[in-house]
Amino acid sequence: MQTLTVTTTNDSYPIYIAASLLNHSALLQRHIHGQQVMIISNETVAPLYIDKILPFLNQNYQCNHLLLPDGEAHKNFYSFSQILDALAMNKHHRDTTLIALGGGVVGDITGFAAACYHRGVHFIQIPTTLLAQVDSSIGGKTAINHSMGKNLIGAFHQPKAVIIDTDTLATLPEREFHAGLAEMVKAALISDKKFFSWLSDNIKSVIAREPKALIYAIEQACLIKCNIVTEDEKEQGVRALLNLGHTFGHAIEQNLGYGKWLHGEAVAVGILMAAHLSNHLGWLSAKELTQIQDIFTQTKLPLKLPSEIKCDKLLAAMEGDKKVLGNQLRLILLKSIGHAVVTDAVSHAMIQRVVKEHG
Amino acid sequence: MQTLTVTTTNDSYPIYIAASLLNHSALLQRHIHGQQVMIISNETVAPLYIDKILPFLNQNYQCNHLLLPDGEAHKNFYSFSQILDALAMNKHHRDTTLIALGGGVVGDITGFAAACYHRGVHFIQIPTTLLAQVDSSIGGKTAINHSMGKNLIGAFHQPKAVIIDTDTLATLPEREFHAGLAEMVKAALISDKKFFSWLSDNIKSVIAREPKALIYAIEQACLIKCNIVTEDEKEQGVRALLNLGHTFGHAIEQNLGYGKWLHGEAVAVGILMAAHLSNHLGWLSAKELTQIQDIFTQTKLPLKLPSEIKCDKLLAAMEGDKKVLGNQLRLILLKSIGHAVVTDAVSHAMIQRVVKEHG
Repeated sequence: MQTLTVTTTNDSYPIYIAASLLNHSALLQRHIHGQQVMIISNETVAPLYIDKILPFLNQNYQCNHLLLPDGEAHKNFYSFSQILDALAMNKHHRDTTLIALGGGVVGDITGFAAACYHRGVHFIQIPTTLLAQVDSSIGGKTAINHSMGKNLIGAFHQPKAVIIDTDTLATLPEREFHAGLAEMVKAALISDKKFFSWLSDNIKSVIAREPKALIYAIEQACLIKCNIVTEDEKEQGVRALLNLGHTFGHAIEQNLGYGKWLHGEAVAVGILMAAHLSNHLGWLSAKELTQIQDIFTQTKLPLKLPSEIKCDKLLAAMEGDKKVLGNQLRLILLKSIGHAVVTDAVSHAMIQRVVKEHG
Repeated sequence: MQTLTVTTTNDSYPIYIAASLLNHSALLQRHIHGQQVMIISNETVAPLYIDKILPFLNQNYQCNHLLLPDGEAHKNFYSFSQILDALAMNKHHRDTTLIALGGGVVGDITGFAAACYHRGVHFIQIPTTLLAQVDSSIGGKTAINHSMGKNLIGAFHQPKAVIIDTDTLATLPEREFHAGLAEMVKAALISDKKFFSWLSDNIKSVIAREPKALIYAIEQACLIKCNIVTEDEKEQGVRALLNLGHTFGHAIEQNLGYGKWLHGEAVAVGILMAAHLSNHLGWLSAKELTQIQDIFTQTKLPLKLPSEIKCDKLLAAMEGDKKVLGNQLRLILLKSIGHAVVTDAVSHAMIQRVVKEHG
């Protein structure tokens, strides 16, 4: 078992990565705080995995669970209030522990409910999708969506542990698995050229979910995220780099309606747009741009914007995005592979050009 | 102008106390972060005071405002979502500043919305009730109520400034003014015997709202709160003492239905019950108990539980309260005037006795 550590201002917490971790009830027990537990999962994941932890939890704690409908469309105010209602109705106290069993949606919304119930209770992340394992479960960014913007309402609230059982990826649909690869490629692109080369060389093994390659890739991506979050817990500096491709990506998701494209799919196109912009600025070389396109081609992620998206609507959504500071559009771009920067050196005209190139 | 300072882990902020502060637009300006402002107030306070700040804000910022209905019954999920909707619809960015103009309800709910919008934006407290001025506006405890418990959903989120214009008390209804005195007495009781003596000697002048006495009393109460919050931002220790009378008080409010009694009224009876319990334990002397009863008698606050409240329902509500840790009922009691402690040395039988004594 690989254990990484995220260190925050007031605390630190472990990320465990290995096969079969859901069978280790002692691991879960170590991070449960009081006598009460609430599992939040969804209707797709729960039938597959909840029985691995439920008997142990029922035996040792007051254990309740709530299953949300599956999908990004349900990462909303209603689901958030449902979790809080379930906690209150079942008389959970301030020393309760929430367990998020599922993908990014379940993790984000559970974390936000944990942040707000009694002004903050403990929670544990058990991510079951590749995207959640390498990205969203780590770092304490919790949120729900608003019709006016993705993750518009949320909190910074760190989990007490992240338990990554790589066996859960066996049941992950191909489309979702590939979407998770987008965040993995992103991690490499922003800060680890060596890992990007490794990924380029081994992408076939990773896509085939060969355990050794897959676990190594997850470990590397988690390590990058760990280091960045430890350096900048509340996104006041370097952590913004993790948003590479996300200003475009969020605008795509919002314009399409949440859930039509997967988050990772929108981010993939967003990363390609950022890479093109970086190339237009004379930063990223043509060769590097090709390398990035190659890896996304192999992962079968979309390379172009959805046909129904209009340029002006995309721009409007980007301006409503939270990466905008004082009305100045800021983007994460690449100086080279492994070296991302925050910049406001991008004109509207340049963005329009790159939107057209990907239309 | 008196300026106190609250120091927190990552920041510090001023509390300004004086007459006519709403006329000092420079004070407000100093603490507005970006180019956008959203004033949250209610339908009672806004007609009285919003025009003192609105022209200046309209002239210098994108300024929007939202008026909630008045009253504790509206400190709920619906009002919270309304504020977030207004922010999103008016395209407020993460560098917006919220201004809470009103009493404890407006302050708590605005603070919670500020905590959650874009995972935390700036906000300024302009408390216009005595209770908000001496208690709820200071210290960053924000929340909304749930039908299962008061302040069940919230966050710790510190304001950037607290602007206490004591002129606003001129329009405060007598009943609300007296309710605010309960929190002032509480501050004295938990940590300042000298201030309690002063209050006992000068309560008539304070009740008559004589400016000199009133401002001095507000300053002293704010100073107590400041010191406690600076010592313990997130209520992991000494800050719990500020809940003197509140476990009883919250249970009363919840049983009656929010808004029937004012928060300060419920807290007053709660403090008297805590004082009696303290006396039964042999801690608080009979003489001190009489002194406390005297001051509450003079402030015309209720001395007995509302007649419709049943003992068993009150106890059930107390057990659902967040001051319960791991099902063990913890209360704040008084060793003597000026010296409060957290204790779990209280049996059910003792609580039943004190409930009966106040029935």
